[in-house]
Amino acid sequence: MIIVGERINGTSKRVREAILNRDRDFVSHQARLQADAGADYIDLNAGTEPEREPDDIAWLVQTVQNAVDEPVCVDSANLEALKAGLEACTGRALVNSASAESQRKDDVLALVQQRGARVVALTLDDSGLPKTTDQRIAVARTLVEAAEKHGIARDDVFIDPLARTIGVENEQGAAFLDAVAAIRQCLPGVHVICGLSNISYQMPARRLLNRTFLAMAMARGMDAAIVDPLDGGLMAAVCAAEVLLGQDEMCIQYIQAHRAGRLEPRA
Amino acid sequence: MIIVGERINGTSKRVREAILNRDRDFVSHQARLQADAGADYIDLNAGTEPEREPDDIAWLVQTVQNAVDEPVCVDSANLEALKAGLEACTGRALVNSASAESQRKDDVLALVQQRGARVVALTLDDSGLPKTTDQRIAVARTLVEAAEKHGIARDDVFIDPLARTIGVENEQGAAFLDAVAAIRQCLPGVHVICGLSNISYQMPARRLLNRTFLAMAMARGMDAAIVDPLDGGLMAAVCAAEVLLGQDEMCIQYIQAHRAGRLEPRA
Repeated sequence: MIIVGERINGTSKRVREAILNRDRDFVSHQARLQADAGADYIDLNAGTEPEREPDDIAWLVQTVQNAVDEPVCVDSANLEALKAGLEACTGRALVNSASAESQRKDDVLALVQQRGARVVALTLDDSGLPKTTDQRIAVARTLVEAAEKHGIARDDVFIDPLARTIGVENEQGAAFLDAVAAIRQCLPGVHVICGLSNISYQMPARRLLNRTFLAMAMARGMDAAIVDPLDGGLMAAVCAAEVLLGQDEMCIQYIQAHRAGRLEPRA
Repeated sequence: MIIVGERINGTSKRVREAILNRDRDFVSHQARLQADAGADYIDLNAGTEPEREPDDIAWLVQTVQNAVDEPVCVDSANLEALKAGLEACTGRALVNSASAESQRKDDVLALVQQRGARVVALTLDDSGLPKTTDQRIAVARTLVEAAEKHGIARDDVFIDPLARTIGVENEQGAAFLDAVAAIRQCLPGVHVICGLSNISYQMPARRLLNRTFLAMAMARGMDAAIVDPLDGGLMAAVCAAEVLLGQDEMCIQYIQAHRAGRLEPRA
């Protein structure tokens, strides 16, 4: 499972302060915490005003690269910020995100190809957020075709079928899960990723919903997730799901996690 | 999700004592605890010597029927015990279990039909325990055809694809999950059930594996399980998985469970 750590996000007040104050210690610490907890990428979302976002995200990239070895995930809806973030990258970044919106699709994919990056591609087009499984599959096809036209390999494309909150629309969990399985079947070679927490928005016991949904999505073929790796219960569920899917040879990772006390966390 | 409560099983020393001593209070209490925790059936396995097992299981059936409204699941490998148990039943029981072994298949199915019961059918034939997904599907077909020949409706057949321990054979989790999905697709109308705890045998943090596997199997279409309903973490995972699959209209069960403190149990 590829874990993208989501904690460095300027929509959180404490992170925003750290960005505005260029608080290197705080940001480095958050990066190290996530890397130690098993993050494969460190997501960086400045969330600041468009005119300063390119500088802010470049600073985040530099700061995090100095703190940890894990590659970064440059996260913005702003093309200029993505450019500035990627320019600061020394390694191979993940870009979050492309979509099939006509305004956005080719610009982001061209940038990804030019920088040799990988890309999260949302199943979102000009008609808006997808509701049904079929809509998600159709947009996923468009995205993979566009990526291939730009010379981006399937292994570098992470389709996000966009989980919508089940509290409002009860059928959205099943529609998402069916889309995960269909995308893995119809578009072999691409990854499927998801920003997990939308699913549980405004529901009680959100961590229970998030970790249960993650295991269920893994059972349908999802192989990456944007999550808080400091959620010990969630990371324990990932560890269990990997061993149950036969992805943990000889159960070595699972047994190590047990010995380190990570399978039965307090949180 | 159909929950079969597994706690009244004579292979446990305390339960065996209660059976031998005709300890009505203990057995009634175990039945009530499980019904209160959400069991839809109370499994009764005497596990005593063949010559006394029919009497023991008949006593268990009578005792539990006096204590709770939930139907029983008469659980034995001994045809005489199944007969005695079913004879004592006032309601519609589940029989655990038939299999495709030539010695056993038709006798158990004939009894099930004659008593108007439902049946758990193990994907086990004369060649032994199944290893691959394909073996499980083939035996499931044989079982469903045999049940239909005996006049048992698909809705009364619960196929158990037999989870094997992942600690010994790493690929068995995935093989089981694929079989669940295939059985639901190839044999519409049948239920898929599983005695969950084999999967985690001799592994650390067994409850984590059990509840994670249950959610994953639900994501592939499993709709019944033989479990300990007093495992609060497991029942919370069931509740979460049901809401995530859109099986809990308006999230009513989930929100009730939250209010009752059942989603974040200590255990």
